[in-house]
This record gives sequence, C-alpha cells and structure tokens, in this order.
Amino acid sequence: MALGCPYGTHRVLGPLGVFPQPAKFINNDFSTLYDNEILIEVEVLNIDSASFSQINTQAEEDPAKIAQIILETVIQRGKQHNPVTGSGGMLIGKIKTIGSALQSRPLNVGDRIAILVSLSLTPLHITEIIAVHKHVDQVEIRGEAILFESGIYAKLPEDMPQKLALAVLDVAGAPAQTAKIVKPGDTVVVIGGGGKSGLLCLHEACKRVGVTGKVIGISHSEAGVARMKESGLPVIPLQGDACDALWVLHQIKGLTDGKLADLTLNMVNIPQTELASILATKDKGIVYFFSMATSFTAAALGAEGVGKDVTMLIGNGYTEGHAEIALAILRENPRLRKIYERTYA
Amino acid sequence: MALGCPYGTHRVLGPLGVFPQPAKFINNDFSTLYDNEILIEVEVLNIDSASFSQINTQAEEDPAKIAQIILETVIQRGKQHNPVTGSGGMLIGKIKTIGSALQSRPLNVGDRIAILVSLSLTPLHITEIIAVHKHVDQVEIRGEAILFESGIYAKLPEDMPQKLALAVLDVAGAPAQTAKIVKPGDTVVVIGGGGKSGLLCLHEACKRVGVTGKVIGISHSEAGVARMKESGLPVIPLQGDACDALWVLHQIKGLTDGKLADLTLNMVNIPQTELASILATKDKGIVYFFSMATSFTAAALGAEGVGKDVTMLIGNGYTEGHAEIALAILRENPRLRKIYERTYA
Ligand SMILES: NC(=O)c1ccc[n+]([C@@H]2O[C@H](COP(=O)([O-])OP(=O)(O)OC[C@H]3O[C@@H](n4cnc5c(N)ncnc54)[C@H](OP(=O)(O)O)[C@@H]3O)[C@@H](O)[C@H]2O)c1
Ligand SMILES: NC(=O)c1ccc[n+]([C@@H]2O[C@H](COP(=O)([O-])OP(=O)(O)OC[C@H]3O[C@@H](n4cnc5c(N)ncnc54)[C@H](OP(=O)(O)O)[C@@H]3O)[C@@H](O)[C@H]2O)c1
Repeated sequence: MALGCPYGTHRVLGPLGVFPQPAKFINNDFSTLYDNEILIEVEVLNIDSASFSQINTQAEEDPAKIAQIILETVIQRGKQHNPVTGSGGMLIGKIKTIGSALQSRPLNVGDRIAILVSLSLTPLHITEIIAVHKHVDQVEIRGEAILFESGIYAKLPEDMPQKLALAVLDVAGAPAQTAKIVKPGDTVVVIGGGGKSGLLCLHEACKRVGVTGKVIGISHSEAGVARMKESGLPVIPLQGDACDALWVLHQIKGLTDGKLADLTLNMVNIPQTELASILATKDKGIVYFFSMATSFTAAALGAEGVGKDVTMLIGNGYTEGHAEIALAILRENPRLRKIYERTYA
Repeated sequence: MALGCPYGTHRVLGPLGVFPQPAKFINNDFSTLYDNEILIEVEVLNIDSASFSQINTQAEEDPAKIAQIILETVIQRGKQHNPVTGSGGMLIGKIKTIGSALQSRPLNVGDRIAILVSLSLTPLHITEIIAVHKHVDQVEIRGEAILFESGIYAKLPEDMPQKLALAVLDVAGAPAQTAKIVKPGDTVVVIGGGGKSGLLCLHEACKRVGVTGKVIGISHSEAGVARMKESGLPVIPLQGDACDALWVLHQIKGLTDGKLADLTLNMVNIPQTELASILATKDKGIVYFFSMATSFTAAALGAEGVGKDVTMLIGNGYTEGHAEIALAILRENPRLRKIYERTYA
C-alpha cells in the first residue's frame, strides 16, 4: 500500500480537508492498511471522564444502553468521538500489524500499548462490547484501531497494574514538563498540588529544585492537603481557594520573603485561577497552565492588567519521554504510589 | 493618605475581594487620593474596537447617544467597562498629581501619557463629553482617572502624531516579545504578518534573525501581502488561509527544506488557526500565540493530537520596555511608518 499522511488525514471522509480530530466521519475499514499505520487489537477503551458521565446520564445509568450508545457513535463516526462533549479518551490493546514504513520503531507485534492520542481522532471498529465498567469509565471490547504515524503511545510497564499505569499516563505531560523547566534553587508553587497531576509535579519539582529550593503546594480540601503531606515530599502545604487571588498572593509573599515564585504550575480542575497563578509569580518568572479550565484571554489580559512580565506556557499534553518520566515517579516514590493506588486506580 | 493596594483593590466597591477589572463598581471619588495613585487629567478615551462597535449599534450610530451610553456606564460602574462586551480600551491624558510614594518615578506633573492597562479596570470620572470621533473609536472628554501603582503606561513620544503612537501602543506587547525570543539564524513564521501587530513583528524578526535566518509572513488578503512587500523587509510573503493547517504545513515545509520553523508567531484576528501554527513549527520549537481568538484547549489538545513537542506561549500584553521597543520600530523603518500612517492612524 501507499504511505498515508502522518497525521491521518488520508482516513478523513468528511468534511474533506480537515484533520481526523475535527472530522465528522473517518474511514474505519481496516481491510487495507497504509504503510505508515499500526493496527491494534483493542482490549479496553478508557472513556474520557466528561464523555463517560454524559453517556451514563443519557443511558439512564444502564450498562446495556451505554454499550448501545458507544456502538452507535462508532458506527456513525468511525471513532469514539462523543458528539455532545466533543471528547474521546484513550485505549489499550495489543499490536497486530506494524506498517512497513514503521519497522524501525522499537515495537513488536504482540506488545501491549496505550494509545496516548485522543479516541476522538482514532479510527476504531468494534465487533463486540464485552463489559462496561462504570466505576472506572472503562469499556472492554473486541475490536481494532489504527495508530497514525504521528500518534503517540506508551508500552505498558510490567511492574504495575494496568489501571495504575493508565492513571499516570492520563496526566503524563505535566510532570515531564515540570522536570524540564524547574531549575536547582527555584521556588515553585503548585496550585492544585493535592490532585492527580499536582502530586506528580510536586515530586518532580522537589527533585529538581534540590536542597536550595522551595516547593509550595496549594489544595482546596483537607483530603488534598493530607495527600501532599502523606507523599513524604519536602513540600510546604497550604489549604485554601485559588480563586482568591489576593489570598494566594499574600500567602506566597509571606513564605518567600516577598520574592514570590520563580515558577507556578496550575494543575486545578476549576476556572478562574489565572490571576492567582500570575500574582504568585515574580517578574520574569514562568507560569505553566496545565488546567484545561484555563482561559486564554483571562491569562493574557490578567498579566497585562497587573503589569506582570511573566512567561505563560500552555500545557502541551505531549513532550518527549513524558510517559517514561511520569511512570518513573511511582517507582521512585512508593508513598506516592500508595496514594495513587488508593485514590486514582 | 495611606498606601492603597498596588493592584487597586482598595477602590473596589463590589463585589468585595475581587480585582478592579472583574469588579462591578469601583470608587471614582478623587477628592481623596492614596499615596500610590497617579491622577490623570483625561483628554481622549480610545474605546476598544469590539466595545465601540457594540455601543455604536446600540446608539443607532448617533454620536449624542454614544456619549450618553458612555456617561451612563461610567456613572454606574466608576469605569468605562462595557457591560455587554466586557472590554475597555485605553486613555490619553496629562499627569495632574503623583502620589508621594511614587515620586521616584521618571514622571512629572504635566507629562502626557497613555495608560496601557485597560479602561475596564481604571477609575474614571467624566465631567463632560466634548466630541465623539466615530471613525477612530475615540471620545474627547473632560475628566479624571487614576493609574494604580501596578498600572503600566507610556509617555507619548514627541516625534509622532498621537493617533500613530496609539496604534503602535495598542499592540506593543507582540513586537517586544518577538525581540526577546528570536535568535540569530532562526526561521520565523508570522501568521497574520500583514496586520497591525504582524508587521511590527516581521520587522523585529528580520532584525533579530540576521542574514543567516529566514522570515516568512502569511496574510489572507492581497492587501495584506502588499503591505508585507511594501515594508521593504526581507520577508518571504505567502497568501492563503491559515485555517487550512495542511496548506500551511506544506508551504512551510517547502520553504524550509522540510525543517519547519524554529518560532511561529500567531497574529491573526480569527479563530481556528492553532493547528496551523503548531504544524508549521519544528519539534522543540516555540509557538507564540498573541491572537485573542486563541483557544487554550485547541492549542493544548492540538499539539498532543499530532505528537508535537513544542513550547506554546500565551501572548502577555506586557513585557518590560514594550512601549519603547514598539515605538522605536517606526523610527527604524520609515516604510513601515508610512504603511502605518496610511492604514491604522
Ligand atoms: N494539558 C493537558 O494535556 C491535560 C491532560 C490531562 C489533564 N489536564 C487537566 O489538568 C487538570 C488537573 O487534572 P487532575 O486529573 O490532576 O485533576 P484533580 O486530580 O481533580 O486535581 C485537581 C486539583 O485542583 C485542586 N483544586 C480544585 N479547586 C481548587 C481551588 N478552588 N483552590 C485550590 N485548589 C483547587 C484540587 O484540590 P482538592 O483535591 O484539595 O480539592 C486538586 O488538588 C484538569 O483541568 C485537566 O483537564 C490537562
Ligand atoms: N495578547 C494581547 O495582549 C493583545 C493585544 C492587542 C491585540 N491582540 C490580538 O492580536 C490579534 C491581531 O491584532 P491586529 O491588530 O494585528 O489585527 P489585524 O491588523 O486585523 O491583523 C490580522 C492579520 O491576520 C490576518 N488574517 C486574518 N484571517 C486570516 C486567515 N484566515 N489566514 C491568514 N491570515 C489571516 C490578516 O490578513 P489580511 O490583512 O491579509 O486579511 C492580518 O494580517 C488580534 O486577535 C488581537 O485581539 C492581543
């Protein structure tokens, strides 16, 4: 066969000219494969949390109806791209065929991998839905999917349960970026430090700032603060509401002799915390927004409005080596692994 | 008097605890001033374009009604914060009083300055509306305003007309950031290069990449491409639609031997150009989003979906020295000044 587009546009059926993610229909006929495609025998769909709860409501919480809705979406669109929420999720499966153009990859037929690009752009064909696991947003299926040449993935580690690995891979971009931007001696503030991505970032931040640095974590609930403490990391834990920008400013000022943070990581799951993140950071410092609730304009105009010369980064879900960096954290920190097993897996 | 909050929260009347920008009501009684406030005798309000066109429509294009609507907003809110669009604009005026805590600033009573923070957070009191200049979104008034300690401003230059300086100051953040991130030898793509901010960025990019670099500008219209050519800058001009990510990718690939850009600057005024910006950029490169039409999630998920390890920056309207850097461009490049005078001033 021929080479397809590395981004998979060769499988877009409509509207023509767009990428697989915004496309309404994509081709999920896998009887002929392109030379730069990888065919996966799918085992589990890990539906995005927003999408799963929408489907669950529409199905009146009936697993049979949930299965029906998913089947219909995939028949109509050629991918599990929730038409209401617009989101997807990820999948786990075994490699069935590796296209001739990708033979140099460190992959073998039979390897179990997680596809880290969204289901909302992944060609999928379902033969049978085996089981719906409502408490973890997962669906066991028999079926096949395509990974495009540009698609990112991770081999599943042998030394941890699949569910644990999935929980880490879901937020892998954040700790990997943290590892890359934190410098020794830095003062780092992690807003949402008690959460799934926040805890991993606290670990990386502590490791990178070293003994001359300082790491402060902010969480909203007592449980979140307890998780930060239980991690055993040398973090200064704060409990409070990051929507209250003045409170955050005063706390961080107090803890840094008025110098503020070199780097603030925003890992919350709620809107309107842009200004707190900006104010916690010193001039010429960096604010890293990983939260999907971030508003571009609130950040841009917020910094201008208070005259803050900070560099503001949009959290890219991908950075080289992100899966390995994130998975390594649970090996390095057994206490964090315990929290993760209890809370997210 | 006492010191106020550097960010002006001492003038917020409601809701309490928020910053002046999101506030509904702020105190515009200037009979007592705080020691870290600067009182301005206002001459001209430069209403934000989105706000002005909303007011114009509501006023059925009648200047008297436009004046009435502005007066009412300022009486109700204590600031020209358009309740429909949420936006403000900027103002020009002469310094009347400098608070005792700010005496060390390089400013004198009588200096004419432009306030570069939004009118949507600036305490304003209007005594009289003198004239409404509809074609330039400006309103001449008699009145006073407060600049907070953290508020940014620029002295108006002596060597250019006020309207020309205002046009440049409106987008000053973009060329100043460009100057700071471009390195010699870089390949730079400016999407929206024929626009108001794009042209200034093209100038800075050409200056910084030097003879070993390459600068490519993309504009949608023939007029935009003509402006890029007329600038006399060594730019490779492209005409096309940046919503077509594949077209952009192919063009930039072709012009860079497949290597793509080290830095892509997004300066458009329309949505859905995130993916084109990401695809035009090489791995480990930088994408700088200045456009307010940027969607945070489209950028974050877009980069992940195509597996691109790029650093994505949110365009901060402010960076140190931004006004001087931007104004200097028109002095350095007389052709650009001519285009600016004809097109934007
Ligand atoms: N950019 C990407 O590619 C990407 C990928 C995956 C996820 N994300 C985003 O990352 C964010 C975090 O995900 P997650 O899985 O880590 O979420 P999570 O486990 O729910 O953690 C959220 C954290 O935010 C804290 N928080 C919530 N409201 C707060 C408030 N008002 N003040 C202070 N802290 C508050 C929570 O504190 P408590 O626990 O104490 O309440 C918790 O620590 C989400 O927005 C998600 O969309 C982005
Ligand atoms: N971050 C901040 O603080 C800040 C401050 C001020 C402004 N901004 C934002 O900066 C952006 C640009 O402002 P501006 O005043 O420079 O705008 P502008 O003068 O209107 O320029 C817009 C440019 O985008 C180009 N364009 C429009 N549609 C396009 C398409 N489909 N494909 C390719 N190019 C296209 C235009 O090309 P043609 O002229 O050829 O049609 C033009 O070159 C706006 O979004 C504004 O909100 C941000």
